[in-house]
Amino acid sequence: MDHQVSLTAYLAAFVAELVQTGIKDVVVSPGSRSTPMAMVLAEHPEINIHIHVDERSAAFFALGIAKATNKPVAILCTSGTAAANYFPAIVEARYSRVPLLVFTADRPHELREVGAPQAIDQIHLYGQHVKWFADMALPENNKEMIRYARTVCARAAAIAMQAPAGPVHLNFPFREPLIPKLDEITFQLEERPNGYVKVRNGELTIPEDEIREISFKLNEYKKGIIVCGNIEDEQFAQAVTELSDALKFPILADPLSQLRSGKHQLENIVESYDTFLRNEDAKPYLQPDVILRFGAMPVSKALTIFLKENHQAEQFVIDGAGGWRDPSSLSTEMIFCNETIFCEKLLSLSETRESVEFLEKWLDVNNLTKANMSLIKDSYKLSEGRLFYQLEEMLPEGATLFVGNSMPIRDLDSFFLNNNKSIKVMANRGANGIDGTVSTALGAALYSKPLYLVLGDLTFFHDLNGLVAAKLYDIDIRIIVVNNNGGGIFSFLPQSQHPKYFELLFGTPLNLEFEHAVRMFDGKFTKVKDWEHLGELMNQSTEVKGLNVYEVVTNRDSNLTEHREFWRIVSQEISNFVKGVH
Amino acid sequence: MDHQVSLTAYLAAFVAELVQTGIKDVVVSPGSRSTPMAMVLAEHPEINIHIHVDERSAAFFALGIAKATNKPVAILCTSGTAAANYFPAIVEARYSRVPLLVFTADRPHELREVGAPQAIDQIHLYGQHVKWFADMALPENNKEMIRYARTVCARAAAIAMQAPAGPVHLNFPFREPLIPKLDEITFQLEERPNGYVKVRNGELTIPEDEIREISFKLNEYKKGIIVCGNIEDEQFAQAVTELSDALKFPILADPLSQLRSGKHQLENIVESYDTFLRNEDAKPYLQPDVILRFGAMPVSKALTIFLKENHQAEQFVIDGAGGWRDPSSLSTEMIFCNETIFCEKLLSLSETRESVEFLEKWLDVNNLTKANMSLIKDSYKLSEGRLFYQLEEMLPEGATLFVGNSMPIRDLDSFFLNNNKSIKVMANRGANGIDGTVSTALGAALYSKPLYLVLGDLTFFHDLNGLVAAKLYDIDIRIIVVNNNGGGIFSFLPQSQHPKYFELLFGTPLNLEFEHAVRMFDGKFTKVKDWEHLGELMNQSTEVKGLNVYEVVTNRDSNLTEHREFWRIVSQEISNFVKGVH
Repeated sequence: MDHQVSLTAYLAAFVAELVQTGIKDVVVSPGSRSTPMAMVLAEHPEINIHIHVDERSAAFFALGIAKATNKPVAILCTSGTAAANYFPAIVEARYSRVPLLVFTADRPHELREVGAPQAIDQIHLYGQHVKWFADMALPENNKEMIRYARTVCARAAAIAMQAPAGPVHLNFPFREPLIPKLDEITFQLEERPNGYVKVRNGELTIPEDEIREISFKLNEYKKGIIVCGNIEDEQFAQAVTELSDALKFPILADPLSQLRSGKHQLENIVESYDTFLRNEDAKPYLQPDVILRFGAMPVSKALTIFLKENHQAEQFVIDGAGGWRDPSSLSTEMIFCNETIFCEKLLSLSETRESVEFLEKWLDVNNLTKANMSLIKDSYKLSEGRLFYQLEEMLPEGATLFVGNSMPIRDLDSFFLNNNKSIKVMANRGANGIDGTVSTALGAALYSKPLYLVLGDLTFFHDLNGLVAAKLYDIDIRIIVVNNNGGGIFSFLPQSQHPKYFELLFGTPLNLEFEHAVRMFDGKFTKVKDWEHLGELMNQSTEVKGLNVYEVVTNRDSNLTEHREFWRIVSQEISNFVKGVH
Repeated sequence: MDHQVSLTAYLAAFVAELVQTGIKDVVVSPGSRSTPMAMVLAEHPEINIHIHVDERSAAFFALGIAKATNKPVAILCTSGTAAANYFPAIVEARYSRVPLLVFTADRPHELREVGAPQAIDQIHLYGQHVKWFADMALPENNKEMIRYARTVCARAAAIAMQAPAGPVHLNFPFREPLIPKLDEITFQLEERPNGYVKVRNGELTIPEDEIREISFKLNEYKKGIIVCGNIEDEQFAQAVTELSDALKFPILADPLSQLRSGKHQLENIVESYDTFLRNEDAKPYLQPDVILRFGAMPVSKALTIFLKENHQAEQFVIDGAGGWRDPSSLSTEMIFCNETIFCEKLLSLSETRESVEFLEKWLDVNNLTKANMSLIKDSYKLSEGRLFYQLEEMLPEGATLFVGNSMPIRDLDSFFLNNNKSIKVMANRGANGIDGTVSTALGAALYSKPLYLVLGDLTFFHDLNGLVAAKLYDIDIRIIVVNNNGGGIFSFLPQSQHPKYFELLFGTPLNLEFEHAVRMFDGKFTKVKDWEHLGELMNQSTEVKGLNVYEVVTNRDSNLTEHREFWRIVSQEISNFVKGVH
């Protein structure tokens, strides 16, 4: 009985501290060994418990909540392979810099590596992929161990939030009996009742004189561009657009930079570069001598190649989390400084430039590209290009758009144009996997409303189990499944030149009627007939509740042909324009 | 072009050696970075490629093939979270001692940890859970590197097979272009065309004089029992039953010991111990002074407790793979010796004992227990107990029975009685997870025919995606889903005494109509009406093709009541018997 008293007090202290750090959401997968933690969490009035039987989906669901709330979310599972199922989401959290607290239940020391049931080696289970691992002490109820439990909790939450945010793993050994004494539980702690230790996470800033040196250097260059990849900082859009305005540098904005939509200045934002940087005449015309790069590497391969080709340019890479995101080894300066602070400080030292010549070249080519999108936007048949082109128009103000990997994020990059709606764009771009997309979007949809998910059929299939959350928690979500019956992206890659094994290894058609699965999860499934039909479906958006899946059937071959034809036409226009200017 | 020539020659050498080691089956998940390996594998005429989009299911599918064939199976995926999805099956393979070769494609060194797309740290990705990890050299085409590729391949396959068998991970960095030159490929190698290096794996045996010492020790004891957990060795049944016959020790046979079914001697095999060892009068009556234990820890908790209570007994634990499977720290001797060899050698030194008194006590109580199963076997309503009791009767000769974790394996333990059909029993008992069960069974069903899978609804749900393999590869399988709408096992655990959070955290009803999902995967779904209906369905077994799901709806509460009532009745009978004997 002493054991149960200790178990209860220790976990109550831990959970009370968890709530003090601001964490509210915990995704729990059922299990036996995790019982004491699950029951104490359930007992706390300020914790929202989300139950998810499949731990893989559970962890992605938590990732989605964390993405939407910018707060750590905790996940709890029992011992054994349950914990191994968390691995994909943990890896994604690490590379996409999303805070997660991973709590795994474990056997106590005497039952480890001795063939006990459901016992696996959980020490450093996720290796390098978590920021911190601690094998917790067995529950004890004395002042020192209560302080220990509270401190570890506060510390874990702080490490998860510290830039770069990411996952932290705490492994809890529990002895039987596993039942806490809930009738005796108290979350009111005597010592420091309002939280044991508050952690204040600092931000990276470089000294004034170094900023001055950078500003001085920048003054020597006339042709600058700003490249923005995925970045999650609400202040950043304002700061970087003001900097762009002063320096007269165009901003090449990845769809995940959150710069294409919003109330900030959109004038200098270039969004069609993935199309026009495929043109060989445009490249010398737009050649920069300096590049400021913020955020993750952009999605566009054309842009990556353009940057590589411009290795002569001075390239400043600014990373507020001290990361090293430079796959082509191009940076001349790696600047570990909060991106917004960097922009603001640099702006304060910069005079507004007069010359707009280089900026206008970029804006001209960008506008020309956008003006030549008729092939895409007027497509009579249902097509992937037009779908992404139309999203901006179809989505309501304030919507969140979650996009699947492989083709959808690339089509979004190509065809989702600047707009002043406040549309937040999300994707799992840490490791770019197709796994867990449904669950991540559903987790985000708990807090980001209304939420629209657009993804391919293989991505939808990969996380079909994730839909159960929509059923259990009545989550409102619109899912557009672009069904081209297989891996559409491979048609764009060199693999497609080798028909011998193409459909077997890469095309991989599954021929699934998703309507069945959607029905099983109490969702509404609609096969989209034409553009008008899709427009109607999207229009009624705010009234529609629950899980809604709209299937847009496309064809991989004609999709490839359309993209190629579009690139050919635009390329010709750009070449004519550039040659005419010279 | 040189690059592609090197890529092709290096991988052709690797794959040629793979085939020489006897590996035929490779489960491939589509991806870009893995293209060269996938295409070279597809080109080899002796490799069977199985495509599986969901890597988690893919790895379990491979595990199933390996379990059925007792040979390593290779799995291949692209870089990133794809590889993380393999983790649950890798952990299961490690603890269940099943050989797996894990091939992951990776970015080359210059693209690691620099924010390149779909690049994650894959060095030692699975930590302690693989037996060997190698980060492969970049492909080169010179004699030394060809020898290297071949040697690593032979070595990896050998390590995977070496006792304890388990997973091995090879990580392949590939540079672009990723397309091999299949028109120039040759798997005919000049140097050592029939395999570069053949590895002969030895077996653990202890010296003659040590066996003599053990035999001498055993002679001092009159009351011996043999405990057999999961063991995969076709010779073992014969060897251990002969030893039992000489020593007059009963064999307590776990359902996964493969001793309850078969053509060997069944006389001394005790299979109802999970029921009668719950009785406090039986325990002193059956108290042993020596225990020989083989294989993994048995499923039965009653047996585990009985062994713990008999800590005074000398306990010999024999493990042919040098493992340490002794969760209660009871062994007096840990004997690292192949189990069959141990039995044979010990038998050769043992005279056949005369006294059968202790053996007969065990057999009497066992028979009494079996004779009192009418409550279970005559259950009018569909029930979990009777289902497992009837399996022996319903399954055809030569069938493979795959059983899900949690309740099904426990009910099998309680109610699956000795029989002389050759029924092979399988389960994922390395880490006892509910994950991947459908896929493991489907993989096994490729080679073990006919195969029957019996599992609970949560287990079925957890790996629903795995059913896609049945559709794509026309696999014949019968799946009996015991649908009690949630986690049935928790009703038997102390959690059930705390109704406040029971259904939320442990019962977790999903209310799913699986018929929808089964239809999506082109399967036939039948809701079983009564016992007669189930009998009819099972009877037509040999003609029925493809995916067939029979749902047996049960009720968690009445299931608990029935089990308790059965234990009560049997316990009374046993007490009467034991007291009457005294």
